[in-house]
Parts: sequence; C-alpha cells; structure tokens
Amino acid sequence: MDIATILGLLTGLIMVGSAMWFGGDALPFIHGPSLLITFGGTLAAVLIHFPAYRVRNAFAVARICFVSSLPEPPEVLEQFRHFALIVRRGGLLALEPIAEQQSDPFLKTGLELTASGCDRETVTAALHREKHAIAIRHASGRQLFEVMASAAPAWGMIGTLIGLTQMLSHLDDPKQIGSGLAVALLTTLYGALFAHLFCIPLAGKLESRHLEEATIRDIMLEGFLALQEEQSLGMIEERLRAWIPPQQRNEVSPDRTKAA
Amino acid sequence: MDIATILGLLTGLIMVGSAMWFGGDALPFIHGPSLLITFGGTLAAVLIHFPAYRVRNAFAVARICFVSSLPEPPEVLEQFRHFALIVRRGGLLALEPIAEQQSDPFLKTGLELTASGCDRETVTAALHREKHAIAIRHASGRQLFEVMASAAPAWGMIGTLIGLTQMLSHLDDPKQIGSGLAVALLTTLYGALFAHLFCIPLAGKLESRHLEEATIRDIMLEGFLALQEEQSLGMIEERLRAWIPPQQRNEVSPDRTKAA
Amino acid sequence: MDIATILGLLTGLIMVGSAMWFGGDALPFIHGPSLLITFGGTLAAVLIHFPAYRVRNAFAVARICFVSSLPEPPEVLEQFRHFALIVRRGGLLALEPIAEQQSDPFLKTGLELTASGCDRETVTAALHREKHAIAIRHASGRQLFEVMASAAPAWGMIGTLIGLTQMLSHLDDPKQIGSGLAVALLTTLYGALFAHLFCIPLAGKLESRHLEEATIRDIMLEGFLALQEEQSLGMIEERLRAWIPPQQRNEVSPDRTKAA
Amino acid sequence: MDIATILGLLTGLIMVGSAMWFGGDALPFIHGPSLLITFGGTLAAVLIHFPAYRVRNAFAVARICFVSSLPEPPEVLEQFRHFALIVRRGGLLALEPIAEQQSDPFLKTGLELTASGCDRETVTAALHREKHAIAIRHASGRQLFEVMASAAPAWGMIGTLIGLTQMLSHLDDPKQIGSGLAVALLTTLYGALFAHLFCIPLAGKLESRHLEEATIRDIMLEGFLALQEEQSLGMIEERLRAWIPPQQRNEVSPDRTKAA
Amino acid sequence: MDIATILGLLTGLIMVGSAMWFGGDALPFIHGPSLLITFGGTLAAVLIHFPAYRVRNAFAVARICFVSSLPEPPEVLEQFRHFALIVRRGGLLALEPIAEQQSDPFLKTGLELTASGCDRETVTAALHREKHAIAIRHASGRQLFEVMASAAPAWGMIGTLIGLTQMLSHLDDPKQIGSGLAVALLTTLYGALFAHLFCIPLAGKLESRHLEEATIRDIMLEGFLALQEEQSLGMIEERLRAWIPPQQRNEVSPDRTKAA
Repeated sequence: MDIATILGLLTGLIMVGSAMWFGGDALPFIHGPSLLITFGGTLAAVLIHFPAYRVRNAFAVARICFVSSLPEPPEVLEQFRHFALIVRRGGLLALEPIAEQQSDPFLKTGLELTASGCDRETVTAALHREKHAIAIRHASGRQLFEVMASAAPAWGMIGTLIGLTQMLSHLDDPKQIGSGLAVALLTTLYGALFAHLFCIPLAGKLESRHLEEATIRDIMLEGFLALQEEQSLGMIEERLRAWIPPQQRNEVSPDRTKAA
Repeated sequence: MDIATILGLLTGLIMVGSAMWFGGDALPFIHGPSLLITFGGTLAAVLIHFPAYRVRNAFAVARICFVSSLPEPPEVLEQFRHFALIVRRGGLLALEPIAEQQSDPFLKTGLELTASGCDRETVTAALHREKHAIAIRHASGRQLFEVMASAAPAWGMIGTLIGLTQMLSHLDDPKQIGSGLAVALLTTLYGALFAHLFCIPLAGKLESRHLEEATIRDIMLEGFLALQEEQSLGMIEERLRAWIPPQQRNEVSPDRTKAA
Repeated sequence: MDIATILGLLTGLIMVGSAMWFGGDALPFIHGPSLLITFGGTLAAVLIHFPAYRVRNAFAVARICFVSSLPEPPEVLEQFRHFALIVRRGGLLALEPIAEQQSDPFLKTGLELTASGCDRETVTAALHREKHAIAIRHASGRQLFEVMASAAPAWGMIGTLIGLTQMLSHLDDPKQIGSGLAVALLTTLYGALFAHLFCIPLAGKLESRHLEEATIRDIMLEGFLALQEEQSLGMIEERLRAWIPPQQRNEVSPDRTKAA
Repeated sequence: MDIATILGLLTGLIMVGSAMWFGGDALPFIHGPSLLITFGGTLAAVLIHFPAYRVRNAFAVARICFVSSLPEPPEVLEQFRHFALIVRRGGLLALEPIAEQQSDPFLKTGLELTASGCDRETVTAALHREKHAIAIRHASGRQLFEVMASAAPAWGMIGTLIGLTQMLSHLDDPKQIGSGLAVALLTTLYGALFAHLFCIPLAGKLESRHLEEATIRDIMLEGFLALQEEQSLGMIEERLRAWIPPQQRNEVSPDRTKAA
Repeated sequence: MDIATILGLLTGLIMVGSAMWFGGDALPFIHGPSLLITFGGTLAAVLIHFPAYRVRNAFAVARICFVSSLPEPPEVLEQFRHFALIVRRGGLLALEPIAEQQSDPFLKTGLELTASGCDRETVTAALHREKHAIAIRHASGRQLFEVMASAAPAWGMIGTLIGLTQMLSHLDDPKQIGSGLAVALLTTLYGALFAHLFCIPLAGKLESRHLEEATIRDIMLEGFLALQEEQSLGMIEERLRAWIPPQQRNEVSPDRTKAA
C-alpha cells in the first residue's frame, strides 16, 4: 500500500468536502447533468485518442500508484546477499529452483539466465529489453492521465458555456441568475478538481514510480552481473550500493553491510 | 471500422446534445452567423497556412481515424507463416504471384523485392524509405488538425468580441443584455467544441495510428529479412514476435505459435 | 500568385465584415485611438526587438506568401531534362550561356559551377551554403511574424485596461457603461484579429514555403550532381524523382517521364 | 546567511502587507477555510506526486536558499594556496590530517583521495560522481517547488469556484454579493502569492545556487588535479582562476595573486 | 546610440500616453500604492531568484540595448585591411603597439596573441573562451529580463486581487464600485505595460545584439587566423566576407573590396 497516495487523495477530498460543508451545505455541488457532460466529454476525448488496449493498460498501470510490490533498495541488497550465499555453496546452477519461486518477471528472467550460464552480453541485453518494455508501459499510462488532465478542464468550460447560454437565453426572472450561474460553474469546478486532484498528481506519481523502478532494476542488473563474476560477498554489496541514489543511501545501514 | 473513434464521437455528441436538450431546448444553440465566423475563420487560417495539396492530403489521412485496413500483429504473423511455407515449397521466386494480389503498397513492394532476390541492404533501404514517407504524411495530417485546434478557439473568441461590442454599443433595452450575451458566447462554445471534440482527439488518434503502423511495418520488415535468410518457421515467428510491444503480446497466443 | 493566401485572407475578412455588418452596422468597429494603441504598441515592440535591417528583410520575405516564383517539381524535372539534352550535345561547357539567362540565383550559381567543371564537393558545398542562407532569411522573417503575433494581443489587452480604467473612473452616467465597454473591448478585438488572421497564418505559410523551397533546392542539387556524372536522361529523371515528396509525386506523370 | 533571499522575501511581504493595510485594514485577508483549501490542496498534490523521502529532501535542499556554507571563489583560491604550501613542505601525505578537519564532504573526499596518492582518473571519477549526486538533489528540490508553483494557483481557483457556487446558490440578500465575492477571491490570492512570492523565486534561487556550486566544485576538482601534479604555486592559481566565471573574476584581485 | 530602441520605447510611451490623455485625463493612471506593489513585488522576485552580482551584471548588459560600441561588418573589414597592411610592412610584431590602442578587450587579446606569434590553436582557443564568456553574460542578462517579464504581470494580478477584495468587503456605497474597480485594475495595467513595453522587447533586443556580436567576433577570429597565415590582402577580405550574413553582405560594397 502506498500510504502517501491514499493520504494525499484523502487530504484533498477532506479539504474540498469541508470547504463545501462548512460554507453552507454540500448539496448544491452534486448535479447529475454537470457530472455527465464533464466526465462524458473527457471519456469521449480519451476513447477517440487512444486505442482500446492502451486505455485498459493505463488503468492497470495506475494500480501501482496505490499498491507497490517493488522492494526497497535495502531489501534488494538483502536478496542478492542471499543469492550470493547460494551461489557460493552450490554454484550458479543452484539459482534455478529459486528462479521458479519468484513472482516478479524481471527477477525471474534474470535468475534463469544467470543459472543457465548465459554470458554478460545476453543477460544485459535481455534485462535491458525487459526494462525498456516496462518504461514504455509506464510512459503510456502517464500520457493517458496527461490527456485527461487537459481534456477535463476543457470539457468543464464547454459545460459552463452551455449552461451560461441556456441561463441567458431564458432570462425572465432576474432572481434566477444566481442559481443558474452556480449550476453553470459546477462543470468548471468538476473539471478542475478531476485534473488537479487526480490526473496531474497521479501522472506525477507514475513518473516517480518509474524512476524508483528504474533504480531497482539497475541494482538488480548489477547484481546479476556481480553474481556471474562470482565475487566476494563484500564486493557484490559494494557494487550494488553504488547504484543506490545518495538520498536513499543512508537508509541502507553501512554497519550491517560491513558486518555481512 | 474503428469502433472507438465512432463511439467516442457519439459519446461526446450525445453528452453535448442531452446537456442542451434537458437544460431547456437546443434551439438557441444553433445560430448561422456564429457558425459562419467560427468555421469560416478557422478555414481562412488553414487556407493561408498550408498549401492546397496538404489540406487535401490531411483529409485523406483523417480517414484512417475511422477506417483502418491495417492488420493486427497476430494476422501479420499468420501472413508471414503463410509466406514462409510458400518459400519453403517453391523458393523466393514463388512469392512473385502473391505480390501481385496484395493491395497494401508496403507489403507489395516488400514481396516484389524479396521475390526478385534483392539483397538485405536494398530491401531495408526501400522499405525504410516507404515507412518514412508514410510517417511524413501522418505528421502532416496531424499538424493540420493541431493548427485547427488552436485556430478554432481563437476565432470563437473573435466572434464573441464582435458580438459583445455590437450588443454593448446598442444597449437601449437592458432586457436584451441576456439574449445578446447568449448569442455572443455561442462562437466561443463552437470553437471549444470543435477543438476538444474533433481536432485534438483526432490528432491524438492519428498519433496512435502512426505508432501502430510503425510497429506493423517493423514486424513486416523483419519478416522479409527472415524470409530471405530462409530460416525455419519457428525461428521466423520468434524473430517477428520480438517486435510486438509487450502489451499486445498476450493477444498472440503462444500455444498456437508453438503448434505451428 | 498564391491564390490560397489571397483566398484565405479574403475569406477571413468577409467573415469578419459580414458578422459586423449583419449584426447591426460596422461603424462602431472603427475607432482611431484603439487602432493607434494596438498597432502602435506592436510596432514599438518590433522596433525594440529587431535591428532595422531584419524588419526590412521580413517584409521582403513576406512577399513570398503572396507571390511565388518557385517552379513546381514537374517543371524542375522538365528543366533538367532540357539541361541534360544540352550537355549531351555540347558538353558541360554548353551550360554557360544558359546560366546567364537565369534570374534565380541558386540555379545560376549551380549552372555556372557545373559549366566550369567544378568537382562534386565544391558544387555541393556552394549550393548548401546558398540553401542555408535562404533558410536563415525565412526563419528570420517567420520570427518577426511570431513576435507580432504575441505582441498584438498583449497590446490589445493593454488598450482594454486603459479604456476600462477611464470608463470606470468617470462613471457618472450608468447608461454610458455599455458604449464605454464596447470601445474598451475594441483593442482586444484588433489584437486578436491581427494575430489570428495575419500574423500566425502568414508565419505558417512562410514555414510551408520554406519546406517547399527546401524540396525544390534538393531536387536541383541532385540534378547538378547528375549532370556532372553525365548519366542517361532516364537515370537523371529517376534520381530527381526520388527527391519529390510522395504526396506530390503523382502530379509528375510517370508516362511522360518514361516517354522522354 | 543569504541576505538577498531574506531581503527579497521581506520586500514582497512588506509590499503585500502595506497594500492590505493602507487600502483599509488587513483583517478581511485572513480567512481560515480559504487558507485550508489552498494549502491543503497543494499539500495533497505534493503528497500524491512525490515519494516521502523526496519531500523531506526538498525541504533540506530549500535551506540552501537562506543559508549557504559554500565558500566564494577567492576563498577557494586561498584554500588551495594553503594546501599547496602544505604539500610543498610535507608531500601529498601531509594533506591527510587536514582532510579530517573538513566538514564539507566534497572537499574531504578530494583531500583523502589526493593524500592517499590515487591517480588522476580515480580522483576525477569519484568527485564527478559526488558532483552529479549533488546536482540530482538540487534538481529534485527544484522540481518540488515547481510542482507547488503550478498546484497552488490551481487550488486557489478551485477554492474560488467553490466559494462562488456557494454564494450564488444562496443569493437571498443582494447586499451579501460583495462580501461573498471577496471571500471567494481570497483563495485565488493565496495561491498566486504562494506561487509568485515563494515557490517560483525559490526554485529560481535553487537553480542559481546550483550553478554557483557547480562552479565551486569545478574549481576544487581542478585544484586537486593541480596539487597532484605538484606544480608551482603560481601555476596552480592560474589554473584555478581559469574556472572562475569572468563576471566574478574581478573580485579575485590579480595583484594579490601575483604577489603569492 | 541605438536609434531603433529609443524610437520603439518613445513610440510605445507616446501611444500609451496619448490613449490616456485623449480618453479623458492621465491623472487616474498614476497611483502610488499600485506602483509600489507591482514593482516592489517584481523586485522581490528578482532579488530572491538571482545572486546580487547577476542583477548588477544584467543592468550593465542592458546598456547595450541603447548604446552599441560594436563596429559594423564593413568597418571590421576596413580594420583588418589596415592590420594586414601593417603586417605586410613590419611583420606580425608590428601589431603590438596597435594592440595597446584598442579599447575592445576581444580585439586587444587577439592582436596581442597574434603579435606574440602564438599558433593557430592558442589564438582560436583563447578567443573562443572570450566569445563564450560574452555569450554567458548576454544570456544571463536576457534571463533576468525574462524573469521580470513573467513576474510583473503576476504581481499585477496579485495587486488587482488585493484591490478587489478590499473594494468588495467594504461595499457600502454602490457608487464607489466604479472607482474602486478602476484602481484595482491599475496594477494589472502596470504589470502588462512593464512586461510588454520593456522586459520582453529588451530581452529580444539582447538576443538580436547577441547574434550580431557573435557574427562580428567570428569575422574578427577569421581575420586573426588570416593575418597569421599572412595571405594577400584580397584573400584576407574574401575569407572575412564569407562570414558576413547574406542579408548584410550588400552593405559591403564589392567594388571597394576589389579596388583594395
């Protein structure tokens, strides 16, 4: 569970909700036709823009904003220390039964290739291809959120223009101007909220996740190369630690590293 | 038929239509002079910007947003499995009668060059040139939609400014302010709708199509190179499958592939 | 004459004119002081931004939006078929009297260098330099139009702010609000019209023209290289046709080409 | 202490404060719920966008906008003149006790590596890695300020839309329009002030600091390489001065340099 | 004196002044507190963004928008013809007394290095370094104007929001709405005028000047290399003329060149 995403969304919703509630009541903010045109229009834009499989893919990718199965850098170091011990006892072939236990396809592919004794170039090429495919999927998901982030406010404005035109062309009772204007502004509010509370921050989270995953995959790739060259446990750790970004490095206790 | 494009356009139109209908009636939204200035102005901008043959070309390219004659990756695999069987039986020359049956110029050129025994470099260069020419045509069409997407809202605003000035300089009866303002806003609404329901999403679809076509052409190019080198059926398939993007790969059933 | 540019400008002017005329009368749209501040301010921005010779140059370049002396690709093919016949009869030296008849400096330079027997590298370098100088002039003209396209709406807004402030600080008679607001909005209208009917589309046309000229110059350069290598008429044509963009290629009748 | 940052912030706050104070009183500008939605929404956007450790890191980085422990170029020259004298007397090894006194990690690492007699490539690689890690941290901090600078005005607008809708749907007493509108506009004001007085200028300061630090690190790196090659004091200074940007060079008195 | 800059600024000021004057009177446009918040806020943004020496440097650089001591290309040609005559009579060493008379540091450095017989690489490297330092100074000055061009309208909007809130929360007398609104809009007007009459065009002029200076320095560098290789006067001129942009080349009379 990514607590920050949940917390951020909750914070935003509570802010908006309490602003609506304490400013009077929240009822005038719920209006079916306004919801329809803002989200229906955004959906229409997305349906035309992207082929169907990319829309499905984007929602699968969006899951990683909330739930992340990625290990942290210290856990990866721990994992590879474990693999190195196995290799020292049973040789590279001993990694084969371990590969089958992995659910992460990147780790699985890496362990299989290392166990089968592939050379450095083959392992690097295969894992880079895997990493590149993950990057494309993330970028593709991010692009969908960015398209929604620009379509939603535009459709909000279209809804407001429709509402304004209707209110203005049937202006019999000047007392209705206020409530008519209030309804017309709702679509602009929906569009802005959808873009700034969901689409733009989630696109940002996907980018952050992408950078984190790239780091983890780089550490793992270095780990497989280090296992192949059958270096000492200490040197393997040293090589992996060089790939951890300095801001996160202090999370990997150096004492424990030296003790190993 | 590209159902997503049709569905998206219908969704958008229904949203807009029902918002107009249920909010009162749709009549005040149809106004000849406002339509004229918004679309006439956009047409003027396009006529000045682009030479005539690029405007014609753009509408031809826009057709592929609605109708696509491109095969899906699994179909291309099936096609090349078929070609490989023919080559195995009758040699490369046996591809010649098949080339003549093809309507797709890329496939036709590729089959002709392969059948006539051209070397790897000639085939690659000729097909890359063909692929590049397709890319230029797509980019050229996309640019026209992008120019319209920025011209339409600008002309909508020009129409609104003209309408406002007229209403304000003949302000005898304050009761007419409402209806005058309603008419003045219509051009802004037209411009926004045209840009956000048609121009921007269709430019996006052209980009998506372009990426899909680039993938298909890459698979085909790999296929022609594989046919030349007369590899086994299994190896040809393996080489082609490496060019399918991972998101689409599961659509190509591996069982069927292995069975072949 | 470039009919599309004239037609586009006329279309735009007629749209605006009829919107003004049929919406009441066009008189309130003509206001000297508003014209002065919008166009005077834009002129001031351009005078400060660019050195004097670039402003002069930009208007010379803008001429090619309306009048184009560039031959079409089929005419260039015809020209080089003619040159090739002359070379076959009288050798490269026979091109010299022809060079003197040319008014286009690019063609003239190319013919002179070819006639004087310069080698491939000299011809290529000299003509590339000539092509690069043309590109710089076009880009320089385009930049001036782009600067005007962003200065005009800004000065329109400045004019509107001045008008609003004046109207609001002398608000004795509420009946004058309407006409005061109408006058204040005029500068915004002028700025938007100038930017979207003239500056932006003409900058676009300059870009289109630039791409066309680059194509024509590439065909000519290939032609001079082909003349030097004294190939057969058919091969010269084949080489030139490869430089014509596919969208325009069907305008060059292949039958006529083969007949030659 | 960076006096310019403090001075700039004070100038901005005094301007805003006096405009509020002398225009009547500052009380109407403080409104709890408006503060909540603007800053709560911005916080929500940041929480979703960035992983927690990058938010912590950004505030640590923001400290360098106010307090800078970086020496000026003349001080660095003075430092390395001092180091060079030590090396002349006691050899490179004599730098070791000095390394332990340094609090700046870059300088410490450089002195340690130089003292231990590492070769040019090792020193350069290690210090470039250190410099790159600093650059990433700065860019990461700057990005957070830029995200806030675009989220704050957006949430200000959302707050204003909520306030407007509330005011308009309970429009019983037309006398309340004014005060309702005033409250609704406050969130837009908060968002604009937060973005333009804090986020954007501080992001700019982080960029300026980054450029300054890059210069200082380049001078230091050159200094370590010069120490290794044990050149004369004059030549070491000459090499370091070449890395000082010309605008700052006159601050380093050349007379003193020659005297050394 | 750069007449175009002066003329442009005067044109803009006269346009604005007459629009204010003839539309009533200019008095309501001068308002101390509004001037304070717009320019004070912009100053605050600049103080935080840039280190102090870059602000000082920017105003020094801005001088070249008004006064330019740069020679025109024909004058540079004349200068180097003069230098070439001196070298022909007295050898490279004869340039030394001339170097001391020069006030332009680039020309001085070039003459000194050439007189002292430095080789091609040393002269090129030293003058490129000098040219690069000038480019950095220009870019740094331009960036400051661009930051002001985006800060001024933002602070204008902040001032308007403060003014609106004040007016709306003390809305006792509806007759005061007009004058209150007029004062509130003034800051937006100040910000827009400062950005579009000063900051943006002057940033543009700095860019134009930068391009001109780069051309002049390239001609001079070529001149020093030509002097070293002691070619004939005619060849030196031919080499220098190749560096003059074609638009300016006709200003350099070829007849005079040939006569020399």
